Amino acid sequence: MAPAGGVSPLTVNRLSIYLRVLRQLAEQGEERISSQQLASRYDLSAAQIRKDLAQFGEFGIRGVGYDVRQLAARLEELLGLDRRYPLVIVGMGNLGRALAHYLEFNSGSFEVVAGVDNDPRGVGRAVGRVTVRPSAELAELVRSTGAVVGVLTVPPEAAQENLDALAAAGVRAVLNFAPGRLRAPRGVRLKNVDLRIHLEELAFYLGAGEAEKPQRR
Amino acid sequence: MAPAGGVSPLTVNRLSIYLRVLRQLAEQGEERISSQQLASRYDLSAAQIRKDLAQFGEFGIRGVGYDVRQLAARLEELLGLDRRYPLVIVGMGNLGRALAHYLEFNSGSFEVVAGVDNDPRGVGRAVGRVTVRPSAELAELVRSTGAVVGVLTVPPEAAQENLDALAAAGVRAVLNFAPGRLRAPRGVRLKNVDLRIHLEELAFYLGAGEAEKPQRR
Repeated sequence: MAPAGGVSPLTVNRLSIYLRVLRQLAEQGEERISSQQLASRYDLSAAQIRKDLAQFGEFGIRGVGYDVRQLAARLEELLGLDRRYPLVIVGMGNLGRALAHYLEFNSGSFEVVAGVDNDPRGVGRAVGRVTVRPSAELAELVRSTGAVVGVLTVPPEAAQENLDALAAAGVRAVLNFAPGRLRAPRGVRLKNVDLRIHLEELAFYLGAGEAEKPQRR
Repeated sequence: MAPAGGVSPLTVNRLSIYLRVLRQLAEQGEERISSQQLASRYDLSAAQIRKDLAQFGEFGIRGVGYDVRQLAARLEELLGLDRRYPLVIVGMGNLGRALAHYLEFNSGSFEVVAGVDNDPRGVGRAVGRVTVRPSAELAELVRSTGAVVGVLTVPPEAAQENLDALAAAGVRAVLNFAPGRLRAPRGVRLKNVDLRIHLEELAFYLGAGEAEKPQRR
């Protein structure tokens, strides 16, 4: 969990939120925004925004605010989104296939270059732009495609061994969708995704709506 | 985008982060934590934590801090996670099927009670605990199952009409995975999920790792 380059995952997460907000503002035709405005509109803290951005240099002009497009472009650069990252999917079941299709059409900075599965029935199948290969070929595929990111969409009991295989093959960052705790191999940045988080955010509003009603129907 | 009950989506998002952190601490056997400790360990702002929690009453004791398990339980209650929410999936393609399986084993507060698709070839197929039904039966299924949450996993061009159909059927919260902007029908809380966010967080560290190397190989 040691922050790389002294920047913590939560700061990166906030930079990512600022970027999304700025992209929205740019779409709406806004040209300038102050940290105060950004904070009050989106329920962020102005001090936090200034502190986060100050880690990376001087942005914005006191009393004038930030140039929306310029700051968005700078954040993309900071977040490393101005480059391309070849990506390999390990586990081409429903979720792996869904992600392969999803990223084919909304790739942003990520390009699916390979997909592997240990079920021989799926091997050879075309999914989006890739053809599913056997898991045994993982190291060879990582080398030949230059994949630097791995996406882990295997059953929980197979997650650790496949994570270790990705690390051994030279992949440097892994997005894991399998539930349960994994040990991140040395030199690999591991991010666990719990798809329930998004649902949990909705639960709050369902509860709030319920409370407003005088009684249950 | 009007906050329900005066609480903004970003506050709910932070409450959800606090909850995850508290669950981790509880697992590690920690019993008490102050807002300062919480803030410095996880790169949050102590003032922000106190402000967020103060909206919901008095937690913690000055100089003693928060009781980890008690605060976690209270946050679960605040976030409405102490209840069960029947859920319908609209679009039983790869992603819909993946979510149905995922939630079957990791349901937390959410229970998949129905899944619909407009492709007749998928209808009748068993996925996890549900059998895929035709989209035309959505309203009837929502009524018979009491589904309050909808998950939208349809192609972008079909997203708005299916969102409207969910709203007309009486669903009150929708998690949308389809890219593009949707108009939230009145009375429906809409949350859009962009699966690339998780990858974008990894990009930062890939960039940072690259910068540490003296030269490219």
